[in-house]
Amino acid sequence: MTTASRFEQLKRIESSKLFQGSVIAIIILSALTIGAKTYELPPLVEQTLTLLDNGITIFFLVEILFRFAACPNKRRFFMDGWNVFDTIVVIGSLIPLDNAEAVLLGRLLRVFRVLRLVSVVPELRFLINSLLKAIPRMGYIAVLMFIIFYIYAAMGSLFFASVDEELWGDVAISMLTLFRVATFEDWTDVMYATMEAYPLSWFYYLTFIFLTAFVFLNMMIGAILEVMSEEQNAKERQQAHDERDDIARQLRVVQEQLTELSRQIGQSGEKRE
Amino acid sequence: MTTASRFEQLKRIESSKLFQGSVIAIIILSALTIGAKTYELPPLVEQTLTLLDNGITIFFLVEILFRFAACPNKRRFFMDGWNVFDTIVVIGSLIPLDNAEAVLLGRLLRVFRVLRLVSVVPELRFLINSLLKAIPRMGYIAVLMFIIFYIYAAMGSLFFASVDEELWGDVAISMLTLFRVATFEDWTDVMYATMEAYPLSWFYYLTFIFLTAFVFLNMMIGAILEVMSEEQNAKERQQAHDERDDIARQLRVVQEQLTELSRQIGQSGEKRE
Amino acid sequence: MTTASRFEQLKRIESSKLFQGSVIAIIILSALTIGAKTYELPPLVEQTLTLLDNGITIFFLVEILFRFAACPNKRRFFMDGWNVFDTIVVIGSLIPLDNAEAVLLGRLLRVFRVLRLVSVVPELRFLINSLLKAIPRMGYIAVLMFIIFYIYAAMGSLFFASVDEELWGDVAISMLTLFRVATFEDWTDVMYATMEAYPLSWFYYLTFIFLTAFVFLNMMIGAILEVMSEEQNAKERQQAHDERDDIARQLRVVQEQLTELSRQIGQSGEKRE
Amino acid sequence: MTTASRFEQLKRIESSKLFQGSVIAIIILSALTIGAKTYELPPLVEQTLTLLDNGITIFFLVEILFRFAACPNKRRFFMDGWNVFDTIVVIGSLIPLDNAEAVLLGRLLRVFRVLRLVSVVPELRFLINSLLKAIPRMGYIAVLMFIIFYIYAAMGSLFFASVDEELWGDVAISMLTLFRVATFEDWTDVMYATMEAYPLSWFYYLTFIFLTAFVFLNMMIGAILEVMSEEQNAKERQQAHDERDDIARQLRVVQEQLTELSRQIGQSGEKRE
Repeated sequence: MTTASRFEQLKRIESSKLFQGSVIAIIILSALTIGAKTYELPPLVEQTLTLLDNGITIFFLVEILFRFAACPNKRRFFMDGWNVFDTIVVIGSLIPLDNAEAVLLGRLLRVFRVLRLVSVVPELRFLINSLLKAIPRMGYIAVLMFIIFYIYAAMGSLFFASVDEELWGDVAISMLTLFRVATFEDWTDVMYATMEAYPLSWFYYLTFIFLTAFVFLNMMIGAILEVMSEEQNAKERQQAHDERDDIARQLRVVQEQLTELSRQIGQSGEKRE
Repeated sequence: MTTASRFEQLKRIESSKLFQGSVIAIIILSALTIGAKTYELPPLVEQTLTLLDNGITIFFLVEILFRFAACPNKRRFFMDGWNVFDTIVVIGSLIPLDNAEAVLLGRLLRVFRVLRLVSVVPELRFLINSLLKAIPRMGYIAVLMFIIFYIYAAMGSLFFASVDEELWGDVAISMLTLFRVATFEDWTDVMYATMEAYPLSWFYYLTFIFLTAFVFLNMMIGAILEVMSEEQNAKERQQAHDERDDIARQLRVVQEQLTELSRQIGQSGEKRE
Repeated sequence: MTTASRFEQLKRIESSKLFQGSVIAIIILSALTIGAKTYELPPLVEQTLTLLDNGITIFFLVEILFRFAACPNKRRFFMDGWNVFDTIVVIGSLIPLDNAEAVLLGRLLRVFRVLRLVSVVPELRFLINSLLKAIPRMGYIAVLMFIIFYIYAAMGSLFFASVDEELWGDVAISMLTLFRVATFEDWTDVMYATMEAYPLSWFYYLTFIFLTAFVFLNMMIGAILEVMSEEQNAKERQQAHDERDDIARQLRVVQEQLTELSRQIGQSGEKRE
Repeated sequence: MTTASRFEQLKRIESSKLFQGSVIAIIILSALTIGAKTYELPPLVEQTLTLLDNGITIFFLVEILFRFAACPNKRRFFMDGWNVFDTIVVIGSLIPLDNAEAVLLGRLLRVFRVLRLVSVVPELRFLINSLLKAIPRMGYIAVLMFIIFYIYAAMGSLFFASVDEELWGDVAISMLTLFRVATFEDWTDVMYATMEAYPLSWFYYLTFIFLTAFVFLNMMIGAILEVMSEEQNAKERQQAHDERDDIARQLRVVQEQLTELSRQIGQSGEKRE
């Protein structure tokens, strides 16, 4: 049997409904196992879960080795971010864990197995990719938002640190407090506290809320517009353009026909004379 | 009298303004009865309400039997989800109730009678249908959202269960707590509590809030765009296409006329020679 | 002097910049007076304010009489909702007030004078009119929202009245509580209280929040789309249609010219034979 | 060396990547210094920071003088708002500060240095300019919103001042309280307090929330539509118009050709006769 046909056979198995389905089933089972472990369980169930967990780890290891074997170009396998992610999660689960802290880390890694669902279901993969594409267009707005937060946080910790050390102690804590204000979470409590020392500090909060809300609103509108001008109606517009192009082409044919006619009439006139 | 004409007569009565109006009036009366029963009332009024309630139950029974009789195809009657819903609500009200729990259930069923307003008023029916159509397009986004919630909940109950058993006890409770965080409801109280044990846990909350807000925002934009590209301007676009089509057709006629002209001139030239 | 020219003169005065400006200035002064009265003031200032207030009342009376006089068609004056509103506010201020309660009512009427700003500044008037136009398109959605609130309120007061009489006592109080839940205002406190009696009541809150948020979101999208399909690009679309129409008309002329040509050639051929 | 070439040389240096990069680096260093000062630091670090701070002040002074020198038209330099802003921030940092209050003011001015990042990075400058352009289109809506707030605040302080002096004392405090209600921040606490004195005051809060939410929603939709009709598809629409124009022009050529043909045939007919 040739290498190429063997690859094709592996590829066929990999892309079969049964294989895909069983991988998704095992990932969901893995997610349920992780969820179940957060409950207090009788020792017997706990042991069964640990066994199941090891089984899932081995299954994932076999699956990724199989997918690696089915990939003709080994280097391109690791070019795909999803494959790298899968490999890290699987290898991470294999490291033997002894002490308590490592157990926590190991369980954390197992939690990320749920994300493998995204890497396996094509629709979710497509969704994540389209979400990632939306990030750069929000880049400079995010920088601007950060500058606004930083300036207000610096001002806040400059003036209000003496009022409440826990909310305005330093610039980092102040930024967290301002994020709280931006989500409207008990922001009046924060304001009333500082208004006792600085009666005009309501101006600080109101301008901050207006600024962030205004910038956020414009960011949202901008994002909607950008996506729209990119995707929406592109096909219909192209069709309209093609139809107009067709009309223009037909018109040129008409003009050529007319020129030819004029030539014919001229000739027939000349002949007669 | 033929069966067909009898059906038509029943149909005519059913779709008459008077019949529709009185059904709507009875449903609103039923809703008011349900509302009135939540108040403490003198025994006499309470008895009157019970009588009224029985009257409404009988009216609904008669109405649904009438509508069933007016329907020529009995099988298609139960194909319509609204009819099935109406039948269940009416039959549910008929079951005799003795003990306290059953009374509660009976009253609950009577509450759902208000929903019959949706099944009777065509505009509301249309609205609900168009809302139901919007659900599938949010499907995979909802799955993604659930995965985000599940992963964060698993992590939350892994780390924070020792901090607050009531908020992070198991994965289900953690998901409820995270939903609370996503609605910004006293989320800082939750965060400040865990920050005492894990000073860096603000990172957990901020990434969660950004992720859910970002995914939600994109979901909203996606929904707006999808509806827009479907419904908006479809008619105008079709019209523009038809008009361009018409122009192209006219042009073809012109070309044919020219070809004919050219033939005529050629002939007239040939004849002369 | 003729009546018509006298009307025109009055009209000219009424629509003059000076007249409009002074009315706006007086309304703003009136608003400031109302605001000033909410502060505790020395008796002298209070007396001055009362004098000023009476002066403003007289000014408004004169102004409305003048506008009435300047209106050629007296009946049409009261057809305009803004004029009726102005008249009621002015007449309301004239009623002499003796006892404490009446004083409160009088001051309330004076508050509504600020709204006269809307009736006087054309841009605000236009804004309000366009807002009013947006109400009907939200009509059935509002009915649906009310039905959702009513059903959940009836269920809420049925089950939770025993838990907290103040939040779920009757259907009206329950609707207010649900509005609070819909605004995410301390909704978890409400939920945690009922979850002690009914551990599954989180389902009630989550479905309610999802339903209202979902319906609201769709309402918003619907409103955006409706306005867009109405207003946006209407002019550009019309222009495109007109241009295509023009092309089609030109084409018909070309066809007629060709038919004529064909006739000419036919004739010239016939003649020759 | 001529003055013009010297300006060009300065301009070349100013717009070089190295110069721009180092200015941005110094601004970020300045921001970090400001942030660092909000922490409690050992005296040595504090002294280093002060030295660094002075160095940055001098750097900014040199940079602005250099940019001023590189500008051929000195008057136009101060026409640009960003330059004026930069100059004020730099000069403000130079004023010697003695007493405690002045130190606070000096530190506040240093905070605004972070904003220089916006004036230096062109993308952020562009973003701010486009945000500023969005302000006027929200002008009258803002006035309307203010009127709504003012009327409700006047009513609130008229009725509720006796209930809670701290929330409804005067019209200004009432407006702050209403802003709190508009952000849904513990608004039910405010409502429950006034409902004890005025049981129907829920109507006041609900109408206020509906009004502000409704006006805000319409403002948002309006802003989206206005931006869209301005920017979106303008290029595509122009292209479609140009293409249709081209078709119409070609048609006119066809018509002229036909008229010429008709003339030719007529002539050839005349000649023959």
